[in-house]
Amino acid sequence: MDIKIGVSNRHVHLSSDDYLTLFGDIKMEKLKDLVQVGEFATNLVVEIATEKAKIGKVRFLGPCRSYTQVEISKTDCYTLGIDAPVRASGDLENASEITIIGPCGRVTKRCAIIANRHLHINHIDRERLGLLTKEKVSIELGTVKSAVLNDVYIKETLNGVLELHLDTDDANSNLVKTGDIARIIR
Amino acid sequence: MDIKIGVSNRHVHLSSDDYLTLFGDIKMEKLKDLVQVGEFATNLVVEIATEKAKIGKVRFLGPCRSYTQVEISKTDCYTLGIDAPVRASGDLENASEITIIGPCGRVTKRCAIIANRHLHINHIDRERLGLLTKEKVSIELGTVKSAVLNDVYIKETLNGVLELHLDTDDANSNLVKTGDIARIIR
Repeated sequence: MDIKIGVSNRHVHLSSDDYLTLFGDIKMEKLKDLVQVGEFATNLVVEIATEKAKIGKVRFLGPCRSYTQVEISKTDCYTLGIDAPVRASGDLENASEITIIGPCGRVTKRCAIIANRHLHINHIDRERLGLLTKEKVSIELGTVKSAVLNDVYIKETLNGVLELHLDTDDANSNLVKTGDIARIIR
Repeated sequence: MDIKIGVSNRHVHLSSDDYLTLFGDIKMEKLKDLVQVGEFATNLVVEIATEKAKIGKVRFLGPCRSYTQVEISKTDCYTLGIDAPVRASGDLENASEITIIGPCGRVTKRCAIIANRHLHINHIDRERLGLLTKEKVSIELGTVKSAVLNDVYIKETLNGVLELHLDTDDANSNLVKTGDIARIIR
């Protein structure tokens, strides 16, 4: 049960309204497609800021969504002095307040989360692998520093492409990078 | 088999010669004792630098040793643009070149490593826990994001105090901090 790893660096998703506030008339361009169908890295970056610190060059991933969300690592949380909760994408309950700064304006809202470890999948692959919807699985990864991650959520979508999404803390802890292979442990 | 976690932020150990080069006549003072007997945080910090980047406020841990060593995380390696190997403390084989900058001078040498995950222990605790010298053990940690780390080295010393030493990547990946409890998995 080999799974390709995709490491997510810190990034933002934007609602159309917030996109307008931050970028005004500036048009986004596709820099490159991501593995998940329809998702892409844009040419645009923002700064994210708190009272304590600012982090620059944070990539905006398109297309626009119905919500604005900042995905950061625990390491970023220490830098920024916030305690963002671990959440599935789109679940902003108790998300941390953060300011997003673009060339045309800024937006401050409670939208910063640490994305949970999740496995993108479609229902065909899920049934092939004998996994249940909403199941959590354990996944082994790494060589020199290896680990079994216990809290990997199944994220089934119609066009899901089999891929394990980790943040940079998970990747750096176990010395893995995008394209490396992980193994599902039953 | 509950074990206290000690998270090591990036730090340097210095030989007496390199201490003189970096700090000259400046005397180190003990800021606080570490858990391991005889080890202490000093009041002194250095910068560490490569051609790509510089990281400031890196703590010097005393006392002086027979070798100079810079312990950093994989995240730091990306910042600095180097690929430091994972090593036990004192093993500088193929260590990465780095420059250490103090108020009185600088030292450039191949001394940057990522410290391996290790369990400090004395022989009494080791026998009590039924562990073998030089054995690697697996240790479970974390709650919201939990994992079993597979590559934890037993580091037995005469005065070793039972403590799991992890770097900030391991800690932040699994949302643990100094003083949290981990569990040995046989």
